[in-house]
Order: sequence, then C-alpha cells, then structure tokens
Amino acid sequence: MSSTKFARPHRPSVEELAQGVLAGNRALLGRAITLVESNAAKDQEASRALISKLLPHSGNAVRIGITGVPGAGKSSFIEAFGTYLCKKGFKVAVLAIDPSSSVSRGSIMGDKTRMEELSGEENAFIRPSPSGGSLGGVARKTRETMIACEAAGFDIILIETVGVGQSETTVRSMVDIFMLLLITGAGDDLQGIKRGIMELADILVVTKDDGDNRQRAAAHCQELKMVLHYLQSPTPGWTPSVLTCSSLEGRGLDTIEETLFRFRDSMKESGFWYNRRRNQSLSWVQALVHEALLTAFEQHPAVASRMPVLENMVAGDKMDPVSAAHDLLSHFTYPVPGH
Amino acid sequence: MSSTKFARPHRPSVEELAQGVLAGNRALLGRAITLVESNAAKDQEASRALISKLLPHSGNAVRIGITGVPGAGKSSFIEAFGTYLCKKGFKVAVLAIDPSSSVSRGSIMGDKTRMEELSGEENAFIRPSPSGGSLGGVARKTRETMIACEAAGFDIILIETVGVGQSETTVRSMVDIFMLLLITGAGDDLQGIKRGIMELADILVVTKDDGDNRQRAAAHCQELKMVLHYLQSPTPGWTPSVLTCSSLEGRGLDTIEETLFRFRDSMKESGFWYNRRRNQSLSWVQALVHEALLTAFEQHPAVASRMPVLENMVAGDKMDPVSAAHDLLSHFTYPVPGH
Repeated sequence: MSSTKFARPHRPSVEELAQGVLAGNRALLGRAITLVESNAAKDQEASRALISKLLPHSGNAVRIGITGVPGAGKSSFIEAFGTYLCKKGFKVAVLAIDPSSSVSRGSIMGDKTRMEELSGEENAFIRPSPSGGSLGGVARKTRETMIACEAAGFDIILIETVGVGQSETTVRSMVDIFMLLLITGAGDDLQGIKRGIMELADILVVTKDDGDNRQRAAAHCQELKMVLHYLQSPTPGWTPSVLTCSSLEGRGLDTIEETLFRFRDSMKESGFWYNRRRNQSLSWVQALVHEALLTAFEQHPAVASRMPVLENMVAGDKMDPVSAAHDLLSHFTYPVPGH
Repeated sequence: MSSTKFARPHRPSVEELAQGVLAGNRALLGRAITLVESNAAKDQEASRALISKLLPHSGNAVRIGITGVPGAGKSSFIEAFGTYLCKKGFKVAVLAIDPSSSVSRGSIMGDKTRMEELSGEENAFIRPSPSGGSLGGVARKTRETMIACEAAGFDIILIETVGVGQSETTVRSMVDIFMLLLITGAGDDLQGIKRGIMELADILVVTKDDGDNRQRAAAHCQELKMVLHYLQSPTPGWTPSVLTCSSLEGRGLDTIEETLFRFRDSMKESGFWYNRRRNQSLSWVQALVHEALLTAFEQHPAVASRMPVLENMVAGDKMDPVSAAHDLLSHFTYPVPGH
C-alpha cells in the first residue's frame, strides 16, 4: 500500500554464486544455500547447475553426524566442540536438520542464546535446514548444503539431527562418521533413544561428565560397552568407541577429536572411507528415484481418488492387499498427467 | 521319446481349491499353495481370485515369527515346540522362508532327518517357501500361504527365517509375535546377530538350557535383560520376555506357550493386536506398490540402458546424484512399454 519502493537486491547468476562460494564468500554461500533449499519449480534447474559446478570442489571435509537422546545436551556439545575445533584452526560448518521446525526456523535457531560463542567464531558457519516438505526433501537440501560448504573450504561438517523419526538413518547415509550423545544415568533414563540408533553410531559420547556426575558417567561407559557387544558396528573394521565429555568444563573434547581423526585415518587406509562415499552417492540416486516415483504415485489423480476406498476395504478385511495393490497400479501412469 | 503317456492330473479350479482348503483337505491346501507360489503370469489372476475367496476365512491363527542366531537350534526348537503344541491339540503350520535356497528346496527341507517327529503329527503342516525371485516375492507368497493355512483351520502359524538379510524385518511385518532364539554363552558368541534384530523380538529364548549349560543360560538371561533396557520394545505395552528352554529335554516349552498366549490376550485387550494387523495390511499394499514401481523402473528399457552410464559417472564424482536421478526419471514411462 505504501508507495515506497525498496531496491530489489541483485540476483546473482549461477556462475556468480559458484565463483563466490569457491572464493569462500559467506554472503554468496548463504545465497547459494538459499537457492539449493528453494522449493520453487523455477529454481530447480539453477540449483542443479550450481551443484554440478560445486561438486568437483567438494568432498574434502570430514562429514560428521551428531544426534542424541533428549536432554543429552547436543547444542552445548556442538557449541563447545565446534568452538574447540575452530580455535585449532579448522573451518567448521554446522548444519541442523529439524523436520519438525516451521518455516520461521523457530525450533532450532530461534533461541538466540544458542551457540553464541560458536557463531562468533570467524571459522564457523551455522545453518539450520529449512523445513516443510518431506524428510527426503530436507535431506536432499542438507546434502547439497554440505557440498556447498565443502566447496567453500570448510573442512569439518557437523550435521545435527534432533532425533525425530527417521532423520538419523538419513543422516547416517550422508556422513562419514556418526556420533551419538547419551546422558549419564541408569538404563532407565534412556528410553528416549530411538530404535536402531545405537547401531548407527561409530562414537558414543556420555555427556555431562562433570561435578557429581563423573562416577556415574564412568559406570555408564562400562555398561554401554557391554551393550555394544550385542550390536553390530555400522563401520566394518571399527569397534564403536565409548567416550565421555563435559561441554561445561571442556573435558574430553581432545579425545573426541583424536578419535574422529583416528577413525578417518584408519578408514582411509582400509579404503572403506572411499567405498562408503561411493555407495552413499549411488544409494542417493536410488533414494531420489524412489521418492519421486512414490510421490508421483500418490499424486496421480486416478490413484489418489481410488486410494482411500481401497484402504478402507483392506483395513476392513474386505479386500486383500495384493488385489488392492494390483488395482491401484492399474490406474497409474507416468509421467503423471498435468504435472 | 517314449510312447508311454502319463495321465495328466486333473487341474482343480479356483473354486475347487477354495472349497478343499476350507474343508481342511491337505492335498488341496498343498495345491493351493503351489498356485499361490507360482511365478507364471497365467497363474496370477487365479491366485488373486483364490486368496480373495480365502481371505474372509483367515485371521484366526496366532502368527509367530521365529528367528535365531546361527547355531541357536531353530530347527530343533520348532520340532520340539511344534510337537508340544500339536500334542496339546493345536493345529500347527510351519512355514520356512529361505531366500537362499534353490528350487529343489535343498537347504531347508532336504535333510530328511529334520522335523521328523513333527512331520509325523497329524495336526502339523510343514511347508518351506520356494525361492527364486526377490525377497519381496518370497514374502508375498509366505503371507498368502499363511492365509491359506488359516483358512484351512490351522490355529498356530510358525514362520521360520534363516536370518539372511532383511527377511526378519519382512517377517516381523506379517506376524503378531516375534521370537528370537539365542544360544548360551558370552556376548562374544553373538556377533552373528544381525543389526536391529534384537529390537524386533517380543520374546527372547535362550536355547540349550540343559546339562552343563544351565548356569550359563541363566547368566545369559540376566545380561540380555540389561541389554534390553537400552532397546525399544517392538510392541507398545509389552516388555520383551527373556526365557530359557531345552529342546532336548523339553524344558521351558510350557512357559513359552504361556507367555505367547499372555502376549496375545494382553494385546487383544488393549486393541493393539487388531491395530497391528490392520496396519500390516495397509503397509503391505504400500510395499507391493513400491516393489512394482521400482521393478518397472529398473526394467524400463530406456532407464536400464542409461543406468550403468550414470552410475559410473556418479561413482566417479563426474555427476551429482540429483542430476543423475533427474536424468533417469526423464526417461521413465509407466506402464513400461512391452510389459
């Protein structure tokens, strides 16, 4: 309604974005990520072109997934550990996946007191993942944001998940190392841990190893080591490490760093590092194809109108699942008309 | 080359098969299962028609999945427990999933000494799953074989998996209760257990609780209970039971039976029993659709010829996964031409 016009900021071209990212320009890295994150149809082509340009310059970082049970102090740990790494000269990018957050990014970054110290570090770059859209969509964006950060020269990428649903499995499929944060205390306190998460972890860290908690943290480590006996390591040739740390007092961060690099060196030596990354890329193609096909199926008008009817019949044992699937597939066509 | 002609056996119609199964005729149950298992295109329609007729008469059995670490004595347990149940008057069907077996069914049933006692029971019906085809295909057949057995009046279905790949997860998705057999001994002996399997189990049974093993079996139970503290129960409202048994001496079979029925009663009371079955049917529709779409994608001529080229590029970091998926999808059409 106002007659005042704001100057529209210059919209950088794909080439400008790529050059800016490669030069380590943070403003342009931010804009590049915004492009990659865009859900707008018109941005898809530019986004793919940008990633193609950045891809040959990516891959040099150590990609670390971090998750934890509720209350384990993920933010404090990332703040403490990220700052520690920055002070040692590493360039650290922190990406947070939160499928539950709203577009305002409220639930992750709204709290201004979070990661105050880390965000002041010149070597740090903190970026929450936008939400909206499927987890697969969020994950795709996180994966491409990671590539952009690597092309911009970051050498450690920390990807934080908040432990909602399947996000841990998805993050495991895009990182080199996966860390699980646990709190001190008896097994009873750990019911918040999601099914299968323990078996994704290469490094388990018992947090809050400070004050009155120190003895309990040590005992908890012993218990975890016994439990791990019964589980499979996600990384052939690596027995998951169980460590303790105090984000408050900075205790244990050096051992975690040392363990991470020992993991990397040993996996590079065995070649598994490169195998895993190659397999991750190939699985990623598959995952994208699966998601696209299933979305097309669900959005297909004839399928979509038939689905609820058949679901009701199957749920009421009026139709068997095989006939229902057969019926639905007979209505499907690809490409989906009108899309 | 011989001029002798053998009379071709009468091929029963779908209606004859359905009536025979419902009357509990074992020869016709066997033929019905053979029809359901057929991969031949011409049998698909008849198979669906048969299952549609049987479905309203199915659902009354307790569906039990059984798996175990290698050496845990699955066959001996099923022999002993199945015989025990038959002698108590239950009609017991044993279905075995073995995706690794050849068409001759050699690896599961070839050994004639296996389940000798159980196969002599009038109340028992033992049927291995044929192999060949995807796990999804094997699973589909197992699910429909289960429906046929239920329609024929069996009230306990034991589905055995041999622990290859994902078969346990698939079986978990079609049964009411899942049992995991473990052997006595230290955690070190259990490295054969597959990722995530412990978290599928409602009942864990430590086998070979006999002779010198009895103390170790008891100790092992205690350890397992502690480990379970860190894992999620697959069934809300049920804390997984840890039991022992000796197939040799018949010890513990009564407690296992009692626990199974306590599980069933408590789940029926809470309603979870029915919820789980409804959700299993709906998931089954989804799984069948997924499998069909992915198979169509892989078999699509244009996709199939392009796939290896793109995979090479992605594996060599010459193309990013998003562009590769986009490229492949642009060549896909459904229905697949020529299919």
